[in-house]
Amino acid sequence: MSVNKPLIFVTNDDGYSAKGIRSLVESLIGLGEIVVVAPDGPRSGMSSAITSIQPIRYHLVKKDEKNDITVYACTGTPVDCVKLGISEIVGRKPDLLVSGINHGSNASVCVLYSGTMGAAMEGALFKVPSIGFSLLDHALDADFAHTYPITRALSEDVLRTGLPAGVCLNVNIPHSDDELKGLKVCRQASGQWIEEFKRSEDGANKPIFWLTGRFDNDEPNDETTDEWALANGYASIVPITVDMTAHMFVEKMKSWEKLIYVSSES
Amino acid sequence: MSVNKPLIFVTNDDGYSAKGIRSLVESLIGLGEIVVVAPDGPRSGMSSAITSIQPIRYHLVKKDEKNDITVYACTGTPVDCVKLGISEIVGRKPDLLVSGINHGSNASVCVLYSGTMGAAMEGALFKVPSIGFSLLDHALDADFAHTYPITRALSEDVLRTGLPAGVCLNVNIPHSDDELKGLKVCRQASGQWIEEFKRSEDGANKPIFWLTGRFDNDEPNDETTDEWALANGYASIVPITVDMTAHMFVEKMKSWEKLIYVSSES
Repeated sequence: MSVNKPLIFVTNDDGYSAKGIRSLVESLIGLGEIVVVAPDGPRSGMSSAITSIQPIRYHLVKKDEKNDITVYACTGTPVDCVKLGISEIVGRKPDLLVSGINHGSNASVCVLYSGTMGAAMEGALFKVPSIGFSLLDHALDADFAHTYPITRALSEDVLRTGLPAGVCLNVNIPHSDDELKGLKVCRQASGQWIEEFKRSEDGANKPIFWLTGRFDNDEPNDETTDEWALANGYASIVPITVDMTAHMFVEKMKSWEKLIYVSSES
Repeated sequence: MSVNKPLIFVTNDDGYSAKGIRSLVESLIGLGEIVVVAPDGPRSGMSSAITSIQPIRYHLVKKDEKNDITVYACTGTPVDCVKLGISEIVGRKPDLLVSGINHGSNASVCVLYSGTMGAAMEGALFKVPSIGFSLLDHALDADFAHTYPITRALSEDVLRTGLPAGVCLNVNIPHSDDELKGLKVCRQASGQWIEEFKRSEDGANKPIFWLTGRFDNDEPNDETTDEWALANGYASIVPITVDMTAHMFVEKMKSWEKLIYVSSES
């Protein structure tokens, strides 16, 4: 309750009761006042989706006075949790936003689909230093013990030093079965998901499709990428920008300005 | 049905029956075989969300043999439409993907929340030259007449020249009430939405929250931004990259590699 305590805002996309977010919160105890505003159930793959044609609700789940942790559940997406949480629930700018720990990788282009990272990017838009954490293990009861020193040390460091404007961190941590060699600061690997829709039928014998697939890495041997780091025993840290401009092409594409001839009376 | 005809894939986030997508399709007639795979209803603000814990369905809406237009409606998100559409419905790589025309702006950071742009980015991940179009008019019956020369000329040009790998275009077009001065190739303006949640009550008198807000532009006078172009009568073209790495910070953040001391027996 001290006014000088940093405010740490925690969210995720697996829901407030997931083991990943509980592990993250546990690793942060003592670093500040911890407020969790997380979805009331799974919201994987929600990217930066927002809810505008439906209302959003939230409720208090629990208050742990001893450890200064308050947990709220929200009916919206991860980004809704950040927007509603900062604007309406805590009512002031947090000193740090952490999202996760996601059950499953958000490396490479998964950053585009990830609700965990959508929330971290939203934190960056609020000008709050923000980190998304993910573990390369989808299991509900995944082992998060080895993530503690990473989530705590990085959170503590970012709380102290901040992050550049408009930049958040995408941190992926190898599976607990793999020997952890250290941290690597990297770039997002280039690649894409190759969709393999699983076709089945509904109760009325109509065709339905389930999204499945495998990741196809364009550059598996490039040591500067997050996928390489993870495949070689390192936790990866990728600085992510909310500026999606392909800056190197702005000047080169200027010729398109001549494409449409508009009568210029101005 | 000619095998040499280019395949043009069309989608959006307002649904297959929206005026914006019908206007876009009309402007493209004759440029190739047109296949529309679009959501069966509104999916605004869906970003790059994907549907994985629910099945997806689609159905044929209509076939216009004369103009070589086939329209499918899909239960999923805009990105689902692209994934299912390319992988299962058309079964081959389109020569061009166009998304929109969105009813409402997707300039600046709206690109992060936009389903229209989520679909265009997904096209870029499929290595298909892709363009997202948006009109600065939310009205269901918005006037799209002035968008025709822009959507047709840009589509024709991109069909001919392609786009750099991993880059798609975010094209925003002023309201029909404003005099169109031409096209401007720009960068994404820096800014954020200031949330102003509208609080009301549900039928059981419990509080509910509706997302509203206003856009706060960090740099309203910068002529290199999309927001400036639109405010000054130009349609804006921003090249958008699916590589979200903040490249300029990768080297600077290398010190974090020393943050965690891992026993190095390797």
